[in-house]
Amino acid sequence: MHISELTHPNQLHGLSIRQLEDIAQQIREKHLETIAATGGHLGPGLGVVELTIALYNTLDLEQDKVIWDVGHQAYPHKMLTGRYHDFHTLRQKDGIAGYLKRSENKFDHFGAGHASTSISAGLGMALARDAKGENFKVVSVIGDGALTGGMALEAINHAGHLPNTNLMVVLNDNEMSISPNVGAISRYLNKVRLSDPIQFLTGNIEEQFKHFPFFGDGENLSPEMKNLKEAMKRLAMPKVGAVIEELGFTYFGPVDGHNIGELINTFQKAHKVKGPVFVHVVTVKGKGYSMAEKDQVGYHAQSPFNLTTGKPIPSNKPKPPSYSKVFAHTLTTLAENDPKIIGITAAMATGTGLDKLQQKLPKQYIDVGIAEQHAVTLAAGLACEGMTPVAAIYSTFLQRAYDQIIHDVCIQKIPVFFCLDRAGIVGADGPTHQGMYDIAYLRCIPNLVIMAPKDEAELQRMTVTGIKYKESAIAMRYPRGNGLGVPLAEEGWEEIPIGKGEILRNGDDVLLVGYGSMVNNAMQTAEILSEHGVEATVINARFVKPLDTDLIVPLAEKIGKVVTLEEGCIMGGFGSAVAEALIDHNVNVPVKRIGVPDILVDHATPAQSFADLGLTSPQIAERVLNTFFSDKPEMAINK
Amino acid sequence: MHISELTHPNQLHGLSIRQLEDIAQQIREKHLETIAATGGHLGPGLGVVELTIALYNTLDLEQDKVIWDVGHQAYPHKMLTGRYHDFHTLRQKDGIAGYLKRSENKFDHFGAGHASTSISAGLGMALARDAKGENFKVVSVIGDGALTGGMALEAINHAGHLPNTNLMVVLNDNEMSISPNVGAISRYLNKVRLSDPIQFLTGNIEEQFKHFPFFGDGENLSPEMKNLKEAMKRLAMPKVGAVIEELGFTYFGPVDGHNIGELINTFQKAHKVKGPVFVHVVTVKGKGYSMAEKDQVGYHAQSPFNLTTGKPIPSNKPKPPSYSKVFAHTLTTLAENDPKIIGITAAMATGTGLDKLQQKLPKQYIDVGIAEQHAVTLAAGLACEGMTPVAAIYSTFLQRAYDQIIHDVCIQKIPVFFCLDRAGIVGADGPTHQGMYDIAYLRCIPNLVIMAPKDEAELQRMTVTGIKYKESAIAMRYPRGNGLGVPLAEEGWEEIPIGKGEILRNGDDVLLVGYGSMVNNAMQTAEILSEHGVEATVINARFVKPLDTDLIVPLAEKIGKVVTLEEGCIMGGFGSAVAEALIDHNVNVPVKRIGVPDILVDHATPAQSFADLGLTSPQIAERVLNTFFSDKPEMAINK
Repeated sequence: MHISELTHPNQLHGLSIRQLEDIAQQIREKHLETIAATGGHLGPGLGVVELTIALYNTLDLEQDKVIWDVGHQAYPHKMLTGRYHDFHTLRQKDGIAGYLKRSENKFDHFGAGHASTSISAGLGMALARDAKGENFKVVSVIGDGALTGGMALEAINHAGHLPNTNLMVVLNDNEMSISPNVGAISRYLNKVRLSDPIQFLTGNIEEQFKHFPFFGDGENLSPEMKNLKEAMKRLAMPKVGAVIEELGFTYFGPVDGHNIGELINTFQKAHKVKGPVFVHVVTVKGKGYSMAEKDQVGYHAQSPFNLTTGKPIPSNKPKPPSYSKVFAHTLTTLAENDPKIIGITAAMATGTGLDKLQQKLPKQYIDVGIAEQHAVTLAAGLACEGMTPVAAIYSTFLQRAYDQIIHDVCIQKIPVFFCLDRAGIVGADGPTHQGMYDIAYLRCIPNLVIMAPKDEAELQRMTVTGIKYKESAIAMRYPRGNGLGVPLAEEGWEEIPIGKGEILRNGDDVLLVGYGSMVNNAMQTAEILSEHGVEATVINARFVKPLDTDLIVPLAEKIGKVVTLEEGCIMGGFGSAVAEALIDHNVNVPVKRIGVPDILVDHATPAQSFADLGLTSPQIAERVLNTFFSDKPEMAINK
Repeated sequence: MHISELTHPNQLHGLSIRQLEDIAQQIREKHLETIAATGGHLGPGLGVVELTIALYNTLDLEQDKVIWDVGHQAYPHKMLTGRYHDFHTLRQKDGIAGYLKRSENKFDHFGAGHASTSISAGLGMALARDAKGENFKVVSVIGDGALTGGMALEAINHAGHLPNTNLMVVLNDNEMSISPNVGAISRYLNKVRLSDPIQFLTGNIEEQFKHFPFFGDGENLSPEMKNLKEAMKRLAMPKVGAVIEELGFTYFGPVDGHNIGELINTFQKAHKVKGPVFVHVVTVKGKGYSMAEKDQVGYHAQSPFNLTTGKPIPSNKPKPPSYSKVFAHTLTTLAENDPKIIGITAAMATGTGLDKLQQKLPKQYIDVGIAEQHAVTLAAGLACEGMTPVAAIYSTFLQRAYDQIIHDVCIQKIPVFFCLDRAGIVGADGPTHQGMYDIAYLRCIPNLVIMAPKDEAELQRMTVTGIKYKESAIAMRYPRGNGLGVPLAEEGWEEIPIGKGEILRNGDDVLLVGYGSMVNNAMQTAEILSEHGVEATVINARFVKPLDTDLIVPLAEKIGKVVTLEEGCIMGGFGSAVAEALIDHNVNVPVKRIGVPDILVDHATPAQSFADLGLTSPQIAERVLNTFFSDKPEMAINK
């Protein structure tokens, strides 16, 4: 049977193990072929092909619900739920999303791009099911990396306390989050995983005890026999998940995650158990593609690559270095001369570029795993003792540590340096990963300086600025992707005075105030406007907090027409800060705020998103002309 | 020795157990006497008197650092660190803070009002110590309630992975957070706690094994003997913290938390262990005050009360019901007729009033423990299955679930109803608990309706509105404390159209746009202004999102002078939303934003805070006159 004939995942039910293995092979091929062409997450999906097939073989997906954590492990799920034919559109505009999405498919029961959410969502559905008196299965699949996120542990704590609520948690244990896992839980799982497969007891321990006639069915044991049974259980437990059992789950495993027969067998047994059940599946990230198996970090997510060589397909022209790379180089250079600098990542060593720091200065590098809350308060603790913690966390993931920023850092005026990578439009990752909200959510917090560089050279200067600043916490946002290609100094970067913007261009007709990555668009816009006879002053604001009101307000008053430009939500964002400053100074001039409106931005290339949002320089020029100069048709842009 | 003679906690070193017990008694008396007079947290401090004394007896506090979780258990610490004489000023303006505060005392190494932060902060300090090559002890004290917070579990996962980093975690295990604990961890601790005190093995299991000669020092055992030792350890472990040991900590306990000798003995042993150490101390919340021991929920925190009877000192005049109480009554009434309504609290059953729902409709009530992240995503899961989840979480604590609101709820347009109690000025709890930021941090999120009632009757209508609304998520904020005393309907509350404000008063001179609790101040301000010849139009905005621009913008344009009023930070807040709307509609009129400026608001009575911030109605009237009518001296307020 070919997978393209599968119109419903329940069609897996009738198939033999051999046929299922054949489907697995087809999924793997399509997966490899697609990611090689489109780019995307390679390793995670390859690891769960058999897990997905076996699980779906044991469920009735017309009613049962599977909740996948961090959607990037759900590519096989997508192919099995009617998206095989469109799979080649993965992560492309109007194509299949790279993560789960309720609006995309009825089998995507809960959207997920961030980690550690599936058990909470699944438990909510299970409790709703019971409240409604319905009867279906709920299965939450979670990776071992995601299990270190506090939210997943909160959910396990809750679920384990509900012996009458049926919920299956499937642990996809591949020893990795994006980078190798850190933490005691991971080490513990490793111990369990590596245990001798020929065990005294395996699988469901309660069931195994039924083989001992003197324990009977376990229901009517004498206290002595109960004690003996408990003692024997404890003796066996390190191999069968002592910790998990102590937390109220029935434990099954470890199961070979690439053996469909064993998986089906285990899932079937586990489905019969009442209450919370935990199935521990050991998988190999990148399974079936030898290069990905060997380099699990490198092949977690990929740009388009050659399937035979495994090498990225070179782009036509050389690109400037990415902001992340420039940041990492700068931080590492500074750290070499200052042992107090400690770089902190939450499982994003490669994404943030901190792997460079790790390689050069491992003692000045901390990876806490997927645990942003802990990362931020750990940084606060380090700063209390005089260290210079640099918390490099994506804008979208810093949302997970919001209270820690307020309560543990800013209320106490502790000097932590937050470096928000991927701030703004992120492209193919879509709405769950857009770095849209950080300006708004940080701006309201007292004792926090917030800045954004106009290019990668200014990023270097701001990195020094952030490291030197000790009055309070300080945050720097910068976009995903490549810099502008401006010249970079190798060292000796100059600090920028806190709260000081700069004028980049003078003109009397309109004031363009740009923030961060949009300063470049402001300059380009000014050039286009100039061609239409409108001369703009351009300000690089640099800081949204403290805003350089000394610079901006008088110019706004003098010029009388203000445009703000930001790569972030305009609701409460940078433009809002400028508007506040103007009204506070009783300068009541028209302001046009340009940025991301109050909508979700879907996956697409960054260029497509910019165009859709009207954020390209020609579009901005047109919007400015229409807003402020529509009475002067000679200035109109030819469309 | 009298405690008042203690000028430094190290003076505890020389004292006998008898003397230490005497100090404990004095602390308890002062504690009871103070809380009875000032109000504050009663039970938590009483439970840790001996723990604090014993711990400090074993430390050199000139260098060693103790990090207390949720500062309200740190009252004995405060008395032992130079604040005994000022302790009667507790939680009063300019007096001792009710939580920990770095700026208050050099022994307050890390501020804390929210739970679950102490291990992260302590680990940060320990790592800094090691990086600097210094040598002091770091002890993080955490309650068993706080241990269910995901962040604490993230920190344990990290610390347990660092065998060379000395860190002591002391678990203050009183079986309670504010309400009785929920969750598997709590049940597990209970099992450990209730185990037979005469045990096969107690205390540090490694040390105990030294008594078995055939295990030697444990360093050079044969593989067989190692296996036997591991098996024996496992056999004993449920009594000595199997889970904790599996996570990489050396476990000590359980220890009687009111036996100073035993505590000192255990701490001394534990200090000698290398790497992460976990000391499990069993305490009784409210210890030494029988009424508090019996009613641990009721005496967690207290208004002033009579020490003999334990009863609250009645206030002179009857007060209107609190917003929380009106909310709880309304929700419970609605839930009686709609089994799909589920109230969710994160360990704040009494604070939010949801204990009323629990009593009447236990099946429609969920307490997840101190786990706001999980609470929100659980609510999302419930809503996916057609339930109507009502997440009642304080404004300040909802900060902990910020990513869940964005990623799990709003991006997916899932209808969760967020009810933000304690939004605005909270009084004696101070900066860690002020509900200042929610308008700003929620306003930037797409697919979210945000509203605030002008009084407790409108709160009832908004509660119905929130429950009926299914287009997206919806949030309602309301203040701490008593309502205005307006008449309340028993049932049959009418929905409010989404995004519709109302005009409460007409006048041509100035437009006052109030949000939530400040609408009442706006009306009072209008009365005062009227006495000075200024007639105000007053709008009750009701919604900050969607803002009623149809109502506000034309009036602003017509009247030409706008004042916004909110009980929250003005940076990015409600006034900012109004300013955005005006500039977006090209209405460039002066706007005065009145609210909380970009500072931290210290503990004081709410009335004192309002006066300090210039938010009383006479102050607002004066500010309005000075801003807009200073050219008309006949309108000046007589000071």
